[in-house]
Amino acid sequence: MDTSEFRRRGKEMVDYVADYLEGIEGRQVYPDVEPGYLRPLVPACAPEEPDTFEDIISDVEKIIMPGVTHWLSPFFFAYFPTANSYPAMLADMLCGAISCIGFSWAASPACTELETVMMDWLGKMLELPEAFLAGGAGEGGGVIQGSASEATLVALLAARTKVIRRLQAASPELTPASIMDKLVAYSSDQVVATLGTTSCCSFDNLLEVGPICAQEDLWLHIDAAYAGSAFICPEFRHLLNGVEFADSFNFNPHKWLLVNFDCSAMWVKKRTDLTGAFKLDPVYLKHSHQDSGLITDYRHWQIPLGRRFRSLKMWFVFRLYGVRGLQAYIRKHVQLAHEFESLVLQDPRFEICMKVTLGLVCFRLKGSNQVNEALLQRINDAKKIHLVPCHLRDKFVLRLAICSRTTESAHVRLAWAHIRELAGAVLEAERAAETKS
Amino acid sequence: MDTSEFRRRGKEMVDYVADYLEGIEGRQVYPDVEPGYLRPLVPACAPEEPDTFEDIISDVEKIIMPGVTHWLSPFFFAYFPTANSYPAMLADMLCGAISCIGFSWAASPACTELETVMMDWLGKMLELPEAFLAGGAGEGGGVIQGSASEATLVALLAARTKVIRRLQAASPELTPASIMDKLVAYSSDQVVATLGTTSCCSFDNLLEVGPICAQEDLWLHIDAAYAGSAFICPEFRHLLNGVEFADSFNFNPHKWLLVNFDCSAMWVKKRTDLTGAFKLDPVYLKHSHQDSGLITDYRHWQIPLGRRFRSLKMWFVFRLYGVRGLQAYIRKHVQLAHEFESLVLQDPRFEICMKVTLGLVCFRLKGSNQVNEALLQRINDAKKIHLVPCHLRDKFVLRLAICSRTTESAHVRLAWAHIRELAGAVLEAERAAETKS
Repeated sequence: MDTSEFRRRGKEMVDYVADYLEGIEGRQVYPDVEPGYLRPLVPACAPEEPDTFEDIISDVEKIIMPGVTHWLSPFFFAYFPTANSYPAMLADMLCGAISCIGFSWAASPACTELETVMMDWLGKMLELPEAFLAGGAGEGGGVIQGSASEATLVALLAARTKVIRRLQAASPELTPASIMDKLVAYSSDQVVATLGTTSCCSFDNLLEVGPICAQEDLWLHIDAAYAGSAFICPEFRHLLNGVEFADSFNFNPHKWLLVNFDCSAMWVKKRTDLTGAFKLDPVYLKHSHQDSGLITDYRHWQIPLGRRFRSLKMWFVFRLYGVRGLQAYIRKHVQLAHEFESLVLQDPRFEICMKVTLGLVCFRLKGSNQVNEALLQRINDAKKIHLVPCHLRDKFVLRLAICSRTTESAHVRLAWAHIRELAGAVLEAERAAETKS
Repeated sequence: MDTSEFRRRGKEMVDYVADYLEGIEGRQVYPDVEPGYLRPLVPACAPEEPDTFEDIISDVEKIIMPGVTHWLSPFFFAYFPTANSYPAMLADMLCGAISCIGFSWAASPACTELETVMMDWLGKMLELPEAFLAGGAGEGGGVIQGSASEATLVALLAARTKVIRRLQAASPELTPASIMDKLVAYSSDQVVATLGTTSCCSFDNLLEVGPICAQEDLWLHIDAAYAGSAFICPEFRHLLNGVEFADSFNFNPHKWLLVNFDCSAMWVKKRTDLTGAFKLDPVYLKHSHQDSGLITDYRHWQIPLGRRFRSLKMWFVFRLYGVRGLQAYIRKHVQLAHEFESLVLQDPRFEICMKVTLGLVCFRLKGSNQVNEALLQRINDAKKIHLVPCHLRDKFVLRLAICSRTTESAHVRLAWAHIRELAGAVLEAERAAETKS
């Protein structure tokens, strides 16, 4: 494909993408396919000679779309949101065209420097303490990780390296492994200190945990993968109080801040805690500025060596929405969650299982786990909406998360009417079974 | 930005991308900026109200491009290639629009199933033993990782978990840490068994290493991050002989196989070695098919939980190039490397430091390390081409890697003429200094 064909096909793809998103409400949110559906539809090997672009686009509708779970459908209420926005997609096109790998400052200065500044912008939106920012007086800074799992792993490894060095300095006869055998990582029953857990969006009290960690010289990592985006709104910022006690903090703009996957934002108070654990300096990556203290080589902040120019997505999204646009987006989702909550509360057959703080509602039929499992089964078999469950203590609970950029009040009301109808059928079936037995 | 504006801006961006790539030869390959150049050019905070798209695009040229190292320039010969192709960029647009997160089969069946089949396609292109394929009789399969570092880490953790379980089964009184303290990971002087090292593209002899690992029950992981792409050509496949002894193997199509970053291909002979080490099964990720044995939940194969629909890039690239197109691409790069090698050999002042096997030429001026450091300094100060060095034993060596899709014979000849001219100046300066002293 030469450049002139790319101009043509690229514009066709822009229209395909726009059509897909504009018409997504008309697609069934959860697919009908069975495991193994795809293999028989494609050849066993790659073609020797090129196929045409028309072949591929026609196969997208024939082979791919029937097997897609449409995360961006307004009827998708499962897991947590995956971020998607037009500005982020435009930025990703530019990122793909530049294709630089930003493992060091020299490998593409703009890639490194925009990331540092965007992480400061985002940190300021969250009112993070200045110690976490790179452009201030502190020793901290931010980095984009691929996922919250990577951020947590990086924090754990940095914490481990730090404590091993401290103990070995005091007792040089100790080996790293003999120290590791005795190390303890404390966690809540939903894992690290967490703001907005996946199951039920619960919050640890940082003002209780933080001072204890400080007193005992423990590394405190805070994971707010989903909830973190909400902290750009002043009315939710109090949930982050106590972050000043943390050594590291992360959340995922790729969940709820309109920056397409992957973009997990992580800050540390001491940059040297990361670079001390991960530093890698072969001669082919050396460059003349690296010992100046002025620059950041992000490969020392993460597991992989390579990295894309992901801060472009943040830059486009923050500028094209503005802080107010982003706040309005968060507030709309929270309001939709409360609307659903109030609908549930009006039906005495149902109960709300967890305080609704952000965009997640945990609810269930009053009664047995079996009846709730049966209800979820009917919901997901009908495939008009898509939900996943969680366990809270010993209860089987349904989760409805406001996920899509296109979800409106009408979709929430349709979803609720549908759930009520299926609940009626489930309860009817249960009564019939009881009468029989 | 609404859908109709996206249609317009998306098409403008397609043209921007096409213009950038068409005109990239005219951009200076390495930027003039100094560390910290970007921060003063952007506001200290995100804007409250949205900026316009015109503002951003104009800032791309004013703020971003002056700080970009142009990896796709035909005069970029540093590190190793970063893959870029029009088919991959089109696929990435589609991936961004679907925005599914493929942590389980149910989270988007097409995402999981296309990946499994594309990894089989690629495995067949490489003539991997059938044990590594998912669609055959064996217990293996492939997965897309974000980077070779992640693939290696995953292999190490899986190997560690496997040996710890084996030893604990024999001696239940041992703790994991006491075992870990005694574990040894053997590596070459360039790290794991490696085909095509970064410094000099050297190759470990798998037919020597493999049988020893098999005999001693050691996990053998093979990393061919750069070189792996070449094995789709029959004339280079012999370099992979011995892969049949490996437990896991990976290489990066995002380096040299025209699939944009990130796409690191990893295969294992036993799927259960990975899932045994990484399995994560909270109730909100459970789905009705997962115990059927028919499906793959890729979250058990990797560090992160989330994953994009990256196999679309492989599908578009393999189909729009065809195997022959991909082979032709590899061969052209190897031929350009040999062309450069032959130019170097014609100049008695220079020497080739390592057999040229693929697209990398390691060369130097006969003489001191200082004179070679001075030559590299002049090359990178002139910024007409971009190279990085390596150390081979105690020698400072220049690396010229054929990197860009747009590099032609004319660029290689221009680069060589430029290097010769600067070498002349360096040697002249050295003679002058000697005469003086």
